[in-house]
Amino acid sequence: MTMGGQARKAVVLVSGGLDSATVLAMARAQGFDCHALSFDYGQRHRCELVAAERVARSLGAVEHRTFTLDLRQFGGSALTDDAIAVPSAPGEGIPVTYVPARNTVFLSLTLAWAEVLGAGDIFIGVNAVDYSGYPDCRPEFIAAFEHMANLATRAAVEGRHLTLHAPLIQLSKAEIIRAGTALGVDYGQTLSCYAPDDAGRACGVCDSCRLRAAGFAAAGLPDPTPYQ
Amino acid sequence: MTMGGQARKAVVLVSGGLDSATVLAMARAQGFDCHALSFDYGQRHRCELVAAERVARSLGAVEHRTFTLDLRQFGGSALTDDAIAVPSAPGEGIPVTYVPARNTVFLSLTLAWAEVLGAGDIFIGVNAVDYSGYPDCRPEFIAAFEHMANLATRAAVEGRHLTLHAPLIQLSKAEIIRAGTALGVDYGQTLSCYAPDDAGRACGVCDSCRLRAAGFAAAGLPDPTPYQ
Repeated sequence: MTMGGQARKAVVLVSGGLDSATVLAMARAQGFDCHALSFDYGQRHRCELVAAERVARSLGAVEHRTFTLDLRQFGGSALTDDAIAVPSAPGEGIPVTYVPARNTVFLSLTLAWAEVLGAGDIFIGVNAVDYSGYPDCRPEFIAAFEHMANLATRAAVEGRHLTLHAPLIQLSKAEIIRAGTALGVDYGQTLSCYAPDDAGRACGVCDSCRLRAAGFAAAGLPDPTPYQ
Repeated sequence: MTMGGQARKAVVLVSGGLDSATVLAMARAQGFDCHALSFDYGQRHRCELVAAERVARSLGAVEHRTFTLDLRQFGGSALTDDAIAVPSAPGEGIPVTYVPARNTVFLSLTLAWAEVLGAGDIFIGVNAVDYSGYPDCRPEFIAAFEHMANLATRAAVEGRHLTLHAPLIQLSKAEIIRAGTALGVDYGQTLSCYAPDDAGRACGVCDSCRLRAAGFAAAGLPDPTPYQ
């Protein structure tokens, strides 16, 4: 991953959660200089931004940037509209925690920063196996976004290819946890919960907490999550 | 364009310029209930937002929303970075007024709002003929975005198709002006300039002003633009 002795730049989406921390460790292991990007989008669970900063620093990102945009201007999700409650049990179909077009919006802004930085690689921790029913976590979405991105930018016109990496997309939560543990990720620093308390401790009952706890159990590894 | 007696909803990107005003008139003429969307993204030429509100109201949009996101957090363009000057003459290649991934970002946010509104149609005034060299104004980009959008959302999973309309994409500026004039657009209400003065009058020398003035001349119609 070097060009003329210089490490190649990648932008890595880091949410503060377990998946994106694993992806950052994977990108670093491949030799990329990693520019970590988080979004302050008006989410309920803003403590994840504190976790993102902690994760980016401890896993050796070159820099960590938090981009602010207020998706509450549109609403439409339990995560961005106080009038919609976060459910405490899984339901049918796409959950109310789905934020309309969120990954599309985040990837588009990531593409913008990659273009400003001259980075040809973007890493995102989406996962199609335990993906909670979100449409924008499917492999066909990632492939379509990469295709579009390779037509959208100055780099595209000038013949430089952009690669969108989604290394977790076919892994189970247990496989992700095993892979990250092998790369030295300290999952006690990450936060996955949709409804943490003020101290950043997880609720243990939301979709995201359930998936995470089941993942540690299936991996046969101790769960370092601080619960409420 | 009616379903059970109700007009169908469309989201129309309205910048305050000539092209998007024409597109709004076209979408209205097709019978859509139009939700106009503008972006306050830290651009130098913010008077265009005043023009956008004026255009949306006079062309019969159901509502007009201005979404705020500060693309100066990334910079990288003469329009979003005070350190880069707006050129007074056309140059070679992609101009410095190109904002990295701007249309991708705007369309992604438009997709998010369309999903919240339950709108199945998006209209954008990109133009590949007089497009000033922007990569994200090409037909292949629009097609790729539409394909991606139809994998990205709850509507996509539930089988509702999203159509991305770019009705100006193969028209010359003169053809756009003739089409809009036939639909009753008052171009004196629009603002295309990248560097207007405080009164909202156009500079007459930037790329955008030159294209616009040449369009009126080629259409054989009087140019109603207030110049500085």
